[in-house]
Amino acid sequence: MNMNDQKDLDLSALFIGDKAENGDYFKKVMSDLIDEHVGWRKNYFPKDKAMITPEEQSSESFIKTQNHMKDVLAEVSRRLRDKSVPWHSAGRYWGHMNSETLMPAVLAYTYAMLWNGNNVAYESSPATSEMEEEVGEEFAKLMSYKEGWGHIVADGSLANLEGLWYARNIKSLPFALKEVVPESVSGKDEWELLNMTTAEIMDLVAANGDKIEEIKNASARSGRNLNKLGKWLIPRTKHYSWLKAADIIGIGLDQVVAVDVDDHYRMDINALEKTIRELTDKQIPILGVVGVVGSTEEGAVDSIDKIVELRNKLQKENIYFYLHVDAAYGGYGRAIFLDEDNNFIPYDKLEEEFNKYNVFTEKGNHIKEEVYNAYKAVEEAESVTIDPHKMGYIPYSAGGIAIKDIRMRDVISYFATYVFEKGADIPALLGAYILEGSKAGATAAAVWAAHQTLPLNISGYGKLIGASIEGSQRYYNFLQGQTFDVDGRTFEIHPLTSPDFNMVDYVVKEQGNDNLVAMNELNHDFYNKASYVDGNLYSKGYIVSHTDFAQDDYGDSPLNYVKSLGFSEDEWRKAGKVTIIRASVMSPYMNDKENFKYFTSSIHDAIQEYLEDIVK
Amino acid sequence: MNMNDQKDLDLSALFIGDKAENGDYFKKVMSDLIDEHVGWRKNYFPKDKAMITPEEQSSESFIKTQNHMKDVLAEVSRRLRDKSVPWHSAGRYWGHMNSETLMPAVLAYTYAMLWNGNNVAYESSPATSEMEEEVGEEFAKLMSYKEGWGHIVADGSLANLEGLWYARNIKSLPFALKEVVPESVSGKDEWELLNMTTAEIMDLVAANGDKIEEIKNASARSGRNLNKLGKWLIPRTKHYSWLKAADIIGIGLDQVVAVDVDDHYRMDINALEKTIRELTDKQIPILGVVGVVGSTEEGAVDSIDKIVELRNKLQKENIYFYLHVDAAYGGYGRAIFLDEDNNFIPYDKLEEEFNKYNVFTEKGNHIKEEVYNAYKAVEEAESVTIDPHKMGYIPYSAGGIAIKDIRMRDVISYFATYVFEKGADIPALLGAYILEGSKAGATAAAVWAAHQTLPLNISGYGKLIGASIEGSQRYYNFLQGQTFDVDGRTFEIHPLTSPDFNMVDYVVKEQGNDNLVAMNELNHDFYNKASYVDGNLYSKGYIVSHTDFAQDDYGDSPLNYVKSLGFSEDEWRKAGKVTIIRASVMSPYMNDKENFKYFTSSIHDAIQEYLEDIVK
Repeated sequence: MNMNDQKDLDLSALFIGDKAENGDYFKKVMSDLIDEHVGWRKNYFPKDKAMITPEEQSSESFIKTQNHMKDVLAEVSRRLRDKSVPWHSAGRYWGHMNSETLMPAVLAYTYAMLWNGNNVAYESSPATSEMEEEVGEEFAKLMSYKEGWGHIVADGSLANLEGLWYARNIKSLPFALKEVVPESVSGKDEWELLNMTTAEIMDLVAANGDKIEEIKNASARSGRNLNKLGKWLIPRTKHYSWLKAADIIGIGLDQVVAVDVDDHYRMDINALEKTIRELTDKQIPILGVVGVVGSTEEGAVDSIDKIVELRNKLQKENIYFYLHVDAAYGGYGRAIFLDEDNNFIPYDKLEEEFNKYNVFTEKGNHIKEEVYNAYKAVEEAESVTIDPHKMGYIPYSAGGIAIKDIRMRDVISYFATYVFEKGADIPALLGAYILEGSKAGATAAAVWAAHQTLPLNISGYGKLIGASIEGSQRYYNFLQGQTFDVDGRTFEIHPLTSPDFNMVDYVVKEQGNDNLVAMNELNHDFYNKASYVDGNLYSKGYIVSHTDFAQDDYGDSPLNYVKSLGFSEDEWRKAGKVTIIRASVMSPYMNDKENFKYFTSSIHDAIQEYLEDIVK
Repeated sequence: MNMNDQKDLDLSALFIGDKAENGDYFKKVMSDLIDEHVGWRKNYFPKDKAMITPEEQSSESFIKTQNHMKDVLAEVSRRLRDKSVPWHSAGRYWGHMNSETLMPAVLAYTYAMLWNGNNVAYESSPATSEMEEEVGEEFAKLMSYKEGWGHIVADGSLANLEGLWYARNIKSLPFALKEVVPESVSGKDEWELLNMTTAEIMDLVAANGDKIEEIKNASARSGRNLNKLGKWLIPRTKHYSWLKAADIIGIGLDQVVAVDVDDHYRMDINALEKTIRELTDKQIPILGVVGVVGSTEEGAVDSIDKIVELRNKLQKENIYFYLHVDAAYGGYGRAIFLDEDNNFIPYDKLEEEFNKYNVFTEKGNHIKEEVYNAYKAVEEAESVTIDPHKMGYIPYSAGGIAIKDIRMRDVISYFATYVFEKGADIPALLGAYILEGSKAGATAAAVWAAHQTLPLNISGYGKLIGASIEGSQRYYNFLQGQTFDVDGRTFEIHPLTSPDFNMVDYVVKEQGNDNLVAMNELNHDFYNKASYVDGNLYSKGYIVSHTDFAQDDYGDSPLNYVKSLGFSEDEWRKAGKVTIIRASVMSPYMNDKENFKYFTSSIHDAIQEYLEDIVK
């Protein structure tokens, strides 16, 4: 379902708006949708008598109950208005990866919720199950997977867990094949079994499809061989979802190996190769490697292309690892590189295409070549986490996963009698292939409606992602060199790195201060001022989030930055961390030069005020 | 927030209604809530200029985009109206555990979704995080846990996985203690370490709180000792969520042991003791036992009291197991036994209290004593799964878990720098203690609003659960002895067991037929007629769900029932299963005698018509 000309798409029509400019429109469409649902209820066997009569509706107990419900909803309303975060703000919220969400998603969610389908089984949700099937195909296409598949997951941590579940079970299959159909892997020693490619394994399993149940029962799902599968390598900035996942999946934290990141906070490919070689030299296999596309703290995009290149090189030496890309945050960003036929646009054509579709308001490429290359190579990964509730601008909870080879799902499948008949010709048989046992059909309706409104290519989401990226570049440029005079003391803003994607980190530093602990305290105080910690959010004119780059997690990756601020290495060792102010720039309005400029004085004044408060 | 007199509560005021009798009311409240949100947006820094101008709103591209979005939403509407399940129907839907949901929950969800809080971190959702904290306390109180805690989970399968995560990590802690603080468990041999009670373990961990991180790192989260922890015992009717959970958590399917059920489909306690003794005689420990309160196929309530009794007995013999109650389905049922002060009502006072609160329309106790005892004993379990999106009448996805001892959560916790500061005095620090890494604040608002409207005791949810139970009893009684004449052939309805909770299973059997395969085919055809399989749901006047009791899963538990229908044991062996028509009776209207009676002729006529179609 395309607009006649997607180039005309106006993002402003798709949000309720910073000042609820489209509030009336939203309300009208909501009202129409509710009417359509109400009509459906009334017309299902219209001759049936109503269970609730006007007499009951005017009875004392009915009215009392209704009033009680109203009291409760009034309290919900009071609490939410008193203590909510104004993510919807065009230019005052610069913190977590959140913003207002797409109107079509909110409307479709509410509408579908009135039917309350459960997408775990087609029977419970024919309409929304079909939508989720389509969304899954869209995820796969977004990753340029030719034989792929995907589905919505409750969130990104669970999608990561599912990715690791795939990796663990697939890595164990050669042992299972050896046990059940030994001739299929004859001549392979244990090391070779542990270093077969996913494609080889899937082919062998498919070739022995008549024994699939026995093979699965002998795989890691049995609990056997878990300790043989090797190490799970993640970037040193390790997101806690990976620790939880390794814990839960049973391979354990002892198997998690952190790989250093460079001073752009991307996985250091030399360190990765060194780590792998040190392990494999000791005959310790590599279960898998996680590349991150959009790290949660820095928005860093790991060089997936270089990880893939390394894997290709190592494969010739009989070393293979599963590759999962954690693009929970950055996954939708791939839309900016796809033309309307889902072809990945060549780098040297990007600028032309960006101009054609008005992806950026300012001429130029806007995308680093290494980031482009990383996104392109995602198609080589076995699985990818992608969260609609992050850069998809969909309300929580909507995570997602895509897999490169649809046959992979057969190795983790289960069948429950009451929700589906095994082998029956049912479309969208979802529950058999996922972690969850129930899932809201409404989420699928929300994501589906958003994807239909904004196709997952340059003409749709590409434009929205572009607005976000351009906004982050404006913010980065604005922050550079900002100074504040407070009682004769000078405070400066120092951004961390130019954004790979749409995240801008910075510190506030007093000129002349060479004490890192003191700077950390200043930034912590600054965060408190610019957050819920220190008073009512509704009255704050500039809101941020923060993080710590601690030596435990980051090693010495932040050292160059810390030094560039004028601190000695000693200071870094003493403080053990650097406290960072952090913003995921998701506002769809900050790409516009005039809009951005309008807010710069508010931001400047708010920072000035916070600093004055702190100095006092 | 209580009504003046909860006894007056009128359930009919809380649903949109079978014929959308409260549709206008719903729409009005929705509209008011949207206005309150819109006002909040407008008044956040009201002097800020609007980002979307009237000029833009009347531009061609804006209107084209708006129209495009309308096209998409129209398609969402068409699809949902074309292929949705009329769960809301008062007397025509008798299948899966679904019905229409509580209006306050739907309204609160939509309202809170406009703010899109993420309850993983207080910072992202102050208002709804506090609501979830309160909901968690309510879950714990519902289970009569004095020092308990709870939270909302994406669904029941994940809550079960979380329960097993607790069990696995806790069971491994004595090994960790031995490694990190050996003196704390000195004198204990491996068997004793593996059979310490959860309370003892928690006390020891608390006593060594200064070494908690080291202890945790040496626990099962490390990946060590998983194969020592023993067997996980589940009822033979094993829900596939437990197979998935054992697979994912790494103990593996090899460790899952199915315990026979009796001919009421409850766990056979003698079989449980026998299984445990056979294992422990071989020095194989018992990791844990799952009791089910409301099985998904039969609504059976396992005798938790007898499991607890057995555990107490075995404890004296140095055998201990973790007990998880899977009350995903039946959990809210405990509300019917709690008075307004959360005391568990004595069995002999139940009838009096039921009458006082009008829990049932017909006088009488309505609750089997063994079911009562089972519910009471839930307070002895370490953890309980409870799903708001089942008997809580909350929209998907809303599962839940409660734990007996809040200290348990410290053994599975993780901390992510950017979402929370370790040790900071932040209320409702949820993300550290759960599987998920993001979760909708809107879900918490929905559950909170429902619990406020209907307290989790006899005066609130008790009444709603009562309506459901009474409806199921009417349905069971109605089905008994129903016969249908089709072309001179007679077909009879045979219900399975009288419902423990609110589920009624039955088969349709032709008089004189002694071929079980033929009866299974008949019931399968019947299901096809009464479901989406064979045509448009909207035109079906009677809709059911179905299941198979197969020997693989059930052993010979169904044999007595099969024999009572006149089939030989040979037939049972030959067919290998019995196909069952299954209904979770959730309608809030079918407790009323007149309402129920109104639908009986429709049901009878529909069955007659389906059978005629099949015979043709």
